[in-house]
Parts: sequence; C-alpha cells; structure tokens
Amino acid sequence: MRGYSTDKDGYLARLRRVEGQVRGLQRMVENDEYCIDVLTQIAAATKALQAVSLGLMDEHLKHCVAQAIAEGGVAADEKVREASEAIARLVRS
Amino acid sequence: MRGYSTDKDGYLARLRRVEGQVRGLQRMVENDEYCIDVLTQIAAATKALQAVSLGLMDEHLKHCVAQAIAEGGVAADEKVREASEAIARLVRS
Amino acid sequence: MRGYSTDKDGYLARLRRVEGQVRGLQRMVENDEYCIDVLTQIAAATKALQAVSLGLMDEHLKHCVAQAIAEGGVAADEKVREASEAIARLVRS
Amino acid sequence: MRGYSTDKDGYLARLRRVEGQVRGLQRMVENDEYCIDVLTQIAAATKALQAVSLGLMDEHLKHCVAQAIAEGGVAADEKVREASEAIARLVRS
Repeated sequence: MRGYSTDKDGYLARLRRVEGQVRGLQRMVENDEYCIDVLTQIAAATKALQAVSLGLMDEHLKHCVAQAIAEGGVAADEKVREASEAIARLVRS
Repeated sequence: MRGYSTDKDGYLARLRRVEGQVRGLQRMVENDEYCIDVLTQIAAATKALQAVSLGLMDEHLKHCVAQAIAEGGVAADEKVREASEAIARLVRS
Repeated sequence: MRGYSTDKDGYLARLRRVEGQVRGLQRMVENDEYCIDVLTQIAAATKALQAVSLGLMDEHLKHCVAQAIAEGGVAADEKVREASEAIARLVRS
Repeated sequence: MRGYSTDKDGYLARLRRVEGQVRGLQRMVENDEYCIDVLTQIAAATKALQAVSLGLMDEHLKHCVAQAIAEGGVAADEKVREASEAIARLVRS
C-alpha cells in the first residue's frame, strides 16, 4: 500500500480545490480581469499544490523510505537517492 | 483593455492544460500511484503555473505599469508598488 | 545614479550580515554541527539575500525602468524585457 | 559522526565561494553597479547555497535518518518529522 493512502481523501479534496482554482483562473483570463488579481490567484493555487507535495513527501519518507531502510540492502540507498532527487525538483519548481 | 489580452488564447490553453494535469493528479492519487511519480507531476503543474505568472507579469509591466508611468502622477508609484508586491508573492510561493 | 543608491547603506548592512551568516555556516560545518541546524541557518541566509533582491528589483522598477519608460523609445522595451528576465531568474532561484 | 562530514571539505569550499560572492556583492553595491547585474550575482549565490542545502539534506537522509530508522523506536519518527519540516523550510525559502 502506498504511503499517501493514509490521507487519500484529504489529498483528493485538496486537488479538487486546486482544480476549481485553475478553472477560476480561466474565467478570470476570459473576463480580462486585472493581471495582479490573476497573479494572486495563481500564487494561491501554487501554494496549495506545494502543500500537497510536502504532505506526500512526508508520508513517502515515513512509509516507503523507512520501510526500505528497515529492510536494508540496495533498495534503501535507491529510495533515499530517489527521495533526494524529488526534494531537489520540489525546491527548484 | 488588460495587458494579458494580447495572448489571451495562449494563457487559456496553458491553464486548460494545467487543469488536465490536476485532474490527472487526482486519478493518480485515486489509483494509489507511486508518491514520487505524483510529486513529479505536481512539479510539472507548478512549473506550468509559474510560466503563466511570469508571462502575465511581463505583460503587466509592458502595458499597465508602462502606461501608468507614461501618464505620470501618483498612479505610477502605486502601480510599481503593486507590481513589486506581486513579484514578492511570486518569489515566495 | 543607480536606483538602489537611495538605500545603499541599508543594502550594504544587510549584505555584511549575510557574509557573517555564511562565515557562521563554515564554522558550523567545521564543528560538525547538526545538519538540520545548518539547513536552518542556510534558509535564513537565503531569505536575507532574497529580501535584498526584492528591494533592488523594486528600486529598479521605480527608477531605471520608470525613467526609460518616461523617455520612451526602444530603451523602454529593452528595460522591461530585462526586468522580466531578472524576475524569472529570481523566481527560479 | 555527522552525516555531512563525509564531504566536509567540499561543503567548506562551496561556502567559502559563497562568502566571496557576498563580498563581491558588497563591492558591486558600493560601486553603484547596475541593479540587474547585482540581481544576477545574488541569484548565483542563492543557487550555490541551495546546492549546499540539497547536498546536506541528502546526506542527512542517508545517515542520520537512516540510522534512526534502522534503530527503530520513537527517535525514527522524530527524525522523519524533523526532516520533513526542514524540507518545507527549504521549499519555502
């Protein structure tokens, strides 16, 4: 079972809200709303996505990575390397 | 007319693609897909939103801010202050 | 005169503080201090640099860009393009 | 032994380079150099600090966190929680 399954409903609810925000952004652009207001709304959607990422990463460390480490061997190193790469993508996005 | 109207269709197309990515994220979570793959997809959606923000900010400077400066007066200072605050939100989100 | 000269002393004071933080980081690594504490201190230095960037960008828009726009012509477009590229670097760094 | 000790010299060398960059920034401001050039140099220093953070976090996961997980118990949960908080600070800085 995947780690994030422990709060699957929470993640789905948050992603549906982001979907609503992105649809709202399309309406704002459609209606020529003021750039700064559109930018504020994009920042809100970005922050919401970031919160989902940080939650998933926390669960990934707690479950997948911890399990691989507990089992030991090459898989553990691989999981840590993979997590570090994902953290780098998160920081740079 | 709002500045971003010059490439309204481009922004709408990009936002529709982000909406699709966010719906894809919901399916991924629904299907318990691997955390790292979900994180990669969130990074892609975040980068796409960021690109829209940078495009809008560029047009905002070119049109709204430039026009306010050309007209002079208090409105110009206000527009620059507002743009600087939006840049700060962009950098911190 | 460059725009940021209006608060030159403030910027210099902040940069000297960042220099002190970076020297502090070297001592921390030298003394094998705890990774998480080192990371917290790096985040503080990064935020301080970011604040300097946002201040400089604000002054740049207020002075250099505004002046170029007021004078009109090709220089104005060039200044806005240059500012937008700097904003993109700021957002992505 | 702290995890990052495995590449202590590398981290020290990188931090000394950042210190040099921050001193260079002071000279640039002192000499009223062009804002955009100062911003470009700040972005370089920020990226260098970020690279140190990502390296330290990778080693932290590989060593401190992995060891705590291998030993099990409450310390492991605590280490993962602490790492997740540090990742969040990294993403938001």
